[in-house]
Amino acid sequence: MSKVTTFQDIKAAASCRYDGVALGEVMLRLDPYDVPTASARQMRVFQGGGETNVACGMAYTFGLRSAVLTALVDDHIGKNIRNQLRGAGVDTSKIIWFNTKSDGSRFSTDGKGTLMNGINFTYNGKGVIPSDTLYYRAHTAIRELRAGDIDWDTLFGQEGVRVFSTGGIFTLISPTSSELALEGVQKANEYGTFVAADLNYRSKVEPNKNRAREINQKIAPYLGFLVGNDSDLHDALGYETRADPDAPYQEWISAYQETVRKVAKDYPNLSLIGTQWRGATNADMISWGAVVYDTAADKIYPAPLRVDIPIADRTGGGDSFASGVLSALLKG
Amino acid sequence: MSKVTTFQDIKAAASCRYDGVALGEVMLRLDPYDVPTASARQMRVFQGGGETNVACGMAYTFGLRSAVLTALVDDHIGKNIRNQLRGAGVDTSKIIWFNTKSDGSRFSTDGKGTLMNGINFTYNGKGVIPSDTLYYRAHTAIRELRAGDIDWDTLFGQEGVRVFSTGGIFTLISPTSSELALEGVQKANEYGTFVAADLNYRSKVEPNKNRAREINQKIAPYLGFLVGNDSDLHDALGYETRADPDAPYQEWISAYQETVRKVAKDYPNLSLIGTQWRGATNADMISWGAVVYDTAADKIYPAPLRVDIPIADRTGGGDSFASGVLSALLKG
Amino acid sequence: MSKVTTFQDIKAAASCRYDGVALGEVMLRLDPYDVPTASARQMRVFQGGGETNVACGMAYTFGLRSAVLTALVDDHIGKNIRNQLRGAGVDTSKIIWFNTKSDGSRFSTDGKGTLMNGINFTYNGKGVIPSDTLYYRAHTAIRELRAGDIDWDTLFGQEGVRVFSTGGIFTLISPTSSELALEGVQKANEYGTFVAADLNYRSKVEPNKNRAREINQKIAPYLGFLVGNDSDLHDALGYETRADPDAPYQEWISAYQETVRKVAKDYPNLSLIGTQWRGATNADMISWGAVVYDTAADKIYPAPLRVDIPIADRTGGGDSFASGVLSALLKG
Amino acid sequence: MSKVTTFQDIKAAASCRYDGVALGEVMLRLDPYDVPTASARQMRVFQGGGETNVACGMAYTFGLRSAVLTALVDDHIGKNIRNQLRGAGVDTSKIIWFNTKSDGSRFSTDGKGTLMNGINFTYNGKGVIPSDTLYYRAHTAIRELRAGDIDWDTLFGQEGVRVFSTGGIFTLISPTSSELALEGVQKANEYGTFVAADLNYRSKVEPNKNRAREINQKIAPYLGFLVGNDSDLHDALGYETRADPDAPYQEWISAYQETVRKVAKDYPNLSLIGTQWRGATNADMISWGAVVYDTAADKIYPAPLRVDIPIADRTGGGDSFASGVLSALLKG
Amino acid sequence: MSKVTTFQDIKAAASCRYDGVALGEVMLRLDPYDVPTASARQMRVFQGGGETNVACGMAYTFGLRSAVLTALVDDHIGKNIRNQLRGAGVDTSKIIWFNTKSDGSRFSTDGKGTLMNGINFTYNGKGVIPSDTLYYRAHTAIRELRAGDIDWDTLFGQEGVRVFSTGGIFTLISPTSSELALEGVQKANEYGTFVAADLNYRSKVEPNKNRAREINQKIAPYLGFLVGNDSDLHDALGYETRADPDAPYQEWISAYQETVRKVAKDYPNLSLIGTQWRGATNADMISWGAVVYDTAADKIYPAPLRVDIPIADRTGGGDSFASGVLSALLKG
Amino acid sequence: MSKVTTFQDIKAAASCRYDGVALGEVMLRLDPYDVPTASARQMRVFQGGGETNVACGMAYTFGLRSAVLTALVDDHIGKNIRNQLRGAGVDTSKIIWFNTKSDGSRFSTDGKGTLMNGINFTYNGKGVIPSDTLYYRAHTAIRELRAGDIDWDTLFGQEGVRVFSTGGIFTLISPTSSELALEGVQKANEYGTFVAADLNYRSKVEPNKNRAREINQKIAPYLGFLVGNDSDLHDALGYETRADPDAPYQEWISAYQETVRKVAKDYPNLSLIGTQWRGATNADMISWGAVVYDTAADKIYPAPLRVDIPIADRTGGGDSFASGVLSALLKG
Repeated sequence: MSKVTTFQDIKAAASCRYDGVALGEVMLRLDPYDVPTASARQMRVFQGGGETNVACGMAYTFGLRSAVLTALVDDHIGKNIRNQLRGAGVDTSKIIWFNTKSDGSRFSTDGKGTLMNGINFTYNGKGVIPSDTLYYRAHTAIRELRAGDIDWDTLFGQEGVRVFSTGGIFTLISPTSSELALEGVQKANEYGTFVAADLNYRSKVEPNKNRAREINQKIAPYLGFLVGNDSDLHDALGYETRADPDAPYQEWISAYQETVRKVAKDYPNLSLIGTQWRGATNADMISWGAVVYDTAADKIYPAPLRVDIPIADRTGGGDSFASGVLSALLKG
Repeated sequence: MSKVTTFQDIKAAASCRYDGVALGEVMLRLDPYDVPTASARQMRVFQGGGETNVACGMAYTFGLRSAVLTALVDDHIGKNIRNQLRGAGVDTSKIIWFNTKSDGSRFSTDGKGTLMNGINFTYNGKGVIPSDTLYYRAHTAIRELRAGDIDWDTLFGQEGVRVFSTGGIFTLISPTSSELALEGVQKANEYGTFVAADLNYRSKVEPNKNRAREINQKIAPYLGFLVGNDSDLHDALGYETRADPDAPYQEWISAYQETVRKVAKDYPNLSLIGTQWRGATNADMISWGAVVYDTAADKIYPAPLRVDIPIADRTGGGDSFASGVLSALLKG
Repeated sequence: MSKVTTFQDIKAAASCRYDGVALGEVMLRLDPYDVPTASARQMRVFQGGGETNVACGMAYTFGLRSAVLTALVDDHIGKNIRNQLRGAGVDTSKIIWFNTKSDGSRFSTDGKGTLMNGINFTYNGKGVIPSDTLYYRAHTAIRELRAGDIDWDTLFGQEGVRVFSTGGIFTLISPTSSELALEGVQKANEYGTFVAADLNYRSKVEPNKNRAREINQKIAPYLGFLVGNDSDLHDALGYETRADPDAPYQEWISAYQETVRKVAKDYPNLSLIGTQWRGATNADMISWGAVVYDTAADKIYPAPLRVDIPIADRTGGGDSFASGVLSALLKG
Repeated sequence: MSKVTTFQDIKAAASCRYDGVALGEVMLRLDPYDVPTASARQMRVFQGGGETNVACGMAYTFGLRSAVLTALVDDHIGKNIRNQLRGAGVDTSKIIWFNTKSDGSRFSTDGKGTLMNGINFTYNGKGVIPSDTLYYRAHTAIRELRAGDIDWDTLFGQEGVRVFSTGGIFTLISPTSSELALEGVQKANEYGTFVAADLNYRSKVEPNKNRAREINQKIAPYLGFLVGNDSDLHDALGYETRADPDAPYQEWISAYQETVRKVAKDYPNLSLIGTQWRGATNADMISWGAVVYDTAADKIYPAPLRVDIPIADRTGGGDSFASGVLSALLKG
Repeated sequence: MSKVTTFQDIKAAASCRYDGVALGEVMLRLDPYDVPTASARQMRVFQGGGETNVACGMAYTFGLRSAVLTALVDDHIGKNIRNQLRGAGVDTSKIIWFNTKSDGSRFSTDGKGTLMNGINFTYNGKGVIPSDTLYYRAHTAIRELRAGDIDWDTLFGQEGVRVFSTGGIFTLISPTSSELALEGVQKANEYGTFVAADLNYRSKVEPNKNRAREINQKIAPYLGFLVGNDSDLHDALGYETRADPDAPYQEWISAYQETVRKVAKDYPNLSLIGTQWRGATNADMISWGAVVYDTAADKIYPAPLRVDIPIADRTGGGDSFASGVLSALLKG
Repeated sequence: MSKVTTFQDIKAAASCRYDGVALGEVMLRLDPYDVPTASARQMRVFQGGGETNVACGMAYTFGLRSAVLTALVDDHIGKNIRNQLRGAGVDTSKIIWFNTKSDGSRFSTDGKGTLMNGINFTYNGKGVIPSDTLYYRAHTAIRELRAGDIDWDTLFGQEGVRVFSTGGIFTLISPTSSELALEGVQKANEYGTFVAADLNYRSKVEPNKNRAREINQKIAPYLGFLVGNDSDLHDALGYETRADPDAPYQEWISAYQETVRKVAKDYPNLSLIGTQWRGATNADMISWGAVVYDTAADKIYPAPLRVDIPIADRTGGGDSFASGVLSALLKG
């Protein structure tokens, strides 16, 4: 097993075509404005995905060169998602397209949705009405990807990638996705690419926590940067955090530090562990913090805590954290 | 086999709870306004389905008592579709709901879209850009329905239905749907309910024309009213029409009459055969006609031909024909 | 005089066609989005009415079988309101329609608005700008209803209704409406239907408090559940509450309890008295509570107080309270 | 009786504060975009009125100084209408405002809509679906105006007006409006102001044609310019035109000329008679022409006929004709 | 030098055509709804300008007779701005229009934007994302105005103006604008018109504070009412305020009083000095206060401080303060 | 002078990074929906430019690798344009950005719009109301570009470009743009890149036809493909076409052929000449054709003429012609 790259050893920009490459799922997001989904007569069209949001943040917010590794069906919705990703500055040339000719080839489907592009309907909530997301993702093209589908040697070896990231939605989304993720993190380290993963545990993706832990325990030894809050670390990796889920920030941070120390001990390959912290006052207002733990220095860096700030939409907050930390590392 | 009810023998309104009941598929329809789907950032929300549109037309346009027999997943999209159907005045109490608890029961699914509500993205086109529909319907709840799922005896026997209609999308949409449709048309006749079906052949639903013909040939003997244009009669029932697909209206109508005479001879149970006729000048303008053939009288009744009329949306024109003819019969 | 039904004696669902029936006014609500009405160039279309909102809540939020007893002019606006009510799952078959033929019959009007459907323009306010509603309801069809217009015997006797509700807007809206309301509450008790009424006093509907009190004092002896906050109890029924209008919640609740004890003593037929409590921090944020008093047990049940929660729209909060309590009773 | 001013004798601009003043009704117009009114969930807000549109056209399209004489209730809708009129450049300082204090004064009403601002819901139609307008105008403030309400001497005598116009909607809208209109046209001539009126007969405003004729025959002797097509001249003034209502343009124009010659003979005060001509191919496309008859010269001036031109909205076409001819006269 | 008019000596309404006239810049404001400008696909159209907002507030909010003195290019955008101003009730007849004929005359430009109407893109921000305005105002017609362009004698002498106001954006926007402003304030005093100016210092308009001070020190001796907070008084007039920029309200108000006393001593012509006070909690919520200092009485009048009120848009808060104080003075 | 590349000699795709590179201007396009610009309260945001549209068409419609050579100010509008171009799949890495720091460097400006991004307001017209565009482009960053600003050797020499295109808006937009264009077409030929230019003459860009001709005559000798209709060839190059501007298509095509033969004789370097042909029936309907002339073969290839087709928007039709022909050449 090759040595795991640390954040201190991220490759120089000049030697790589991409600052960041993210492997994962991306869906069309339909947002019913300020009306709950069941009553909506108009919806706004966005895109999003736990892993691909990291690439979007890198490219759009931080101006870095990022690409997504994902699969889409080559229909109008696939093109819509691609157009949005391109608009954000993300390189979409690595997307694996399933044609709609139903021609029997490996990357082929039909025009009926047998394989389809993932869709979610996300209502942002209001006051006491919580935000709510409905997923139509059980038959997406991305679930079909498996080890061997991506030419890692060209990507990591010839083109060059500074950071490779993936996450817990993709990892658990299908029987074959975990193998592809594992292949990816191994190959990345082989070529000296720094690897990040966000545990991002969702029971709606994989209700079986044991399977989640088993898979993530295979992947964790290849990571340089692990993103996960206390409940992710529990559900997807098996660590208990001493503090109550609703504990106030100060209490939480000290308990979290205790946990990540244990994680760092078990996975000495990790050079960074971190998470955002979010306390939702109601659907329109949150308190927001973040913390990064430098394992070698045994030092925790908290972001200033912002209390009761109005938000438009809470979805993707964790992805923006990962994107921000990685971009800071990449920009030095 | 019970005698097939003719249009002259439709039951009296007072003896029935429903004027019309339609068995079939209904989808959420997302319409990207005047921008092609791949570029859209906003969409409008409608609902529609080949068979259920007939029930909507009866209730909304003609004020009749109609219901739909369909299946939906009980999520926000299922509720949105239901709300729209209810708003149109359609009775939704017969809908078979699949819960999202994944509880292992027959009518249960999850929140991931393993079974989902059908969605289509329909752009109306403009000038030389044709209208375009993308279907995500391969994993819909309606496909799971099978013979035995509907209590026909209560519906046709106790509650009473004047007209039962179904169509060629539902009939061919899954291995089990044809059996349920066949069961329905048989049971309807058993209780003296008039039966209509629109062949509505779509290669995107069933590319195999032989299967389509085989199934429709089993259903046809139970129909009182068959809806289908020349290409439907060919693709879904096996009849050739002498005229060219692009033949002008007058040439077409005489060829069509010839064909339907043959059909009427083969299926003496049919008391009515008809279709709309549509010639698209471009995406914004069509010529529009319709014709009904009274088999007993051997007489064809054409609607006045309207030439070059602007349209907002061509989808569902055939359904409105069936709905209009049936409503005229029901209103006497 | 027949015995007044208590909440403990609400009829069983199986014996009734309707869980709830609401008698009252419903208007088209035009909402100018986030711009004050006088500057608006676009408006959103909703519907609403103090009494009918209770039926909507029962049907849409709680899935119960409810109907509205109201009158509408049979024009596009009347149909729009009906379509919205139907969409919410409310039975609209009992609506009394005024045709627009001006044919001299009792339920006839013209196309000019001589009788019209009520319209309100409701701006939700923002920060220091309060919400604002303008009513065009002085010539609505509902005002024409009078005793004798509704066949209570069929409704309460044959079809069966578990809860009948009305309220202080309808009761006072015209010289004849109070008589119809009185007839309704009497008939309901005759058939063992539980009766609820929300005092909902609005000086814009009836500026004369003496008339309001006189009428409500005639209706109160027939109620099982009386909804009204301290100012309603004063303006519409003549009771003083010891606490200041702007008193904090805790002070208010003890004073309110004192008042409702007096009310319960004067009207021993009442088995429940209650109200929501609302403190508006500004147009976007309220504190919200509710309380129900069980007269037989002499016990007050407060809902948890929610402080400073963002809201989209404050209109209809009281109606949702009544709807919620009734639905809880109906669902057991 | 003072001499009626001819179009040749319109006063010089410098001597007058206003180029045109229009007396009549104005309503808020709610337009449901491309969806029929009964299904609309959003509406666009415009304003309009048969007579006031003439003032708008003069001010907005032709840059002339115009004012409206109308009455509005001083609520948010009245202000919305006023804001729109002001935006179009129309002087709104002559509007008679009814306060909402219900203070018993002549120009006072309440906040309930006892007197209200007129509202119409106008759907533009599409293809075979005709445009459709629903009026809520039976209780508008403008109907309350009566002779004596306007200070004509200040307006025509001191401030100065070049053209005064009114029309057949206002004239017939209430028992008192005709008297105010008559007073206005008489006073205008007294001060040498040119007077125009558009017969604009609408059975929805006054179904009794005999009353319409009687009133218009009293007003006609005071007009310089009479606007009316063949059916207006029949319904509102009693003249038959030889041609069929659906006659083609050329046939129509010669028959119309015959009629207006008779009119000019009966009312020698008229110096101009004219109308637009409109043939609706469907809801989206019309053929459009116009004609003006110079009575003194016995000469008819047709505008070029435009065949099959797409239109967004046909409402107000006649008003724009009047506005255009008058502006041409005023600009010389 | 003529005596400077004090607020006690504002002319009577009857003797003046205008209550207020504002000299300054006005731009089209494009607002990308709730999406940052760079991602917006739709924008809302408003108008605004530091000085002209004062006239809008006077006319629209307070019903006073106000006019703007500004320059616009006579294209569709200029007309759009004018239409909006007219809709607000502002007299636009004094606007100096630059034609687009490029005819070589002083007030002429082309259709390419060589001189153009100012545009700004203003995103209101959300939570931690601050509001943001982008200005395209470097080549506006208003910058071309110079001393001599406005006929002050007719305006102040013949027509009569009660209050003349201008402000620090216009004053500094071009080399010639300051001279026109100076000419205006001098002429106003000559005719007994009360003069107000809002320092409104913006480094984006004039980064050179020395130039700003030099010009404002020339104008200040002609003002009756000076509007400016502590940083305006520093940047644009050279006074230090003892309190920290982020000082809490109470500390700030006492320091501010100290400063304005100094200002009043240096400019004894000032009868009033004042400002709004705004503390932004985040992009959606501010604390808001205001204070007016009566120099003769040496008395400070604070408005009640409102804490943490939600706002839609913070732009123009200071202009509304000036407009409110002036309107209060004008209404007595 | 190097030999001019012919369309037969376009380089192979594998040898080039770009299929097409377009040099020119791009603006934000604000579209007021269906309301004329002066009345609009909402606008839709697009982007467009005569030359850059060719790159967009290549990338978005034909899936080719294209880039734009343009200059933008690095503000929110510049980013909005870039995001849209990226969304269309265009490579934006060659854009020359002007920072807003006003730092005195060559590519620097301020935040006031001294240099700005071009904006146009384009109303599409309706029926008899023609479409209308207002340009604010006189101070755009692109006008500042001059010979030497682009590293042609890297682009054409190292990276490789199959087709280089520019056009008559950029060429004439500033004193320096023509030199940069000339430099570009020369360098392209030096490296064997095929060159296309659309004359696209607009009097609003350069009213002086003599200057236009002089410049285009310098550029023409370096082109392989010249795009221009008869009026372009006249205004921008000095050739007369025998047919009337309103001549029907058949008459026009034969006259056009005559002209292009003359052009081909004068510029033997041209291997292709062509244009679209458009006859506007009204603002909503056009007849549309196109023609390409192969100079070597002396053969004219007309596209099928489409008569009276509805259109949404006529702007950019010519650009789509150039884009289509070039893409066809590139795809072989």
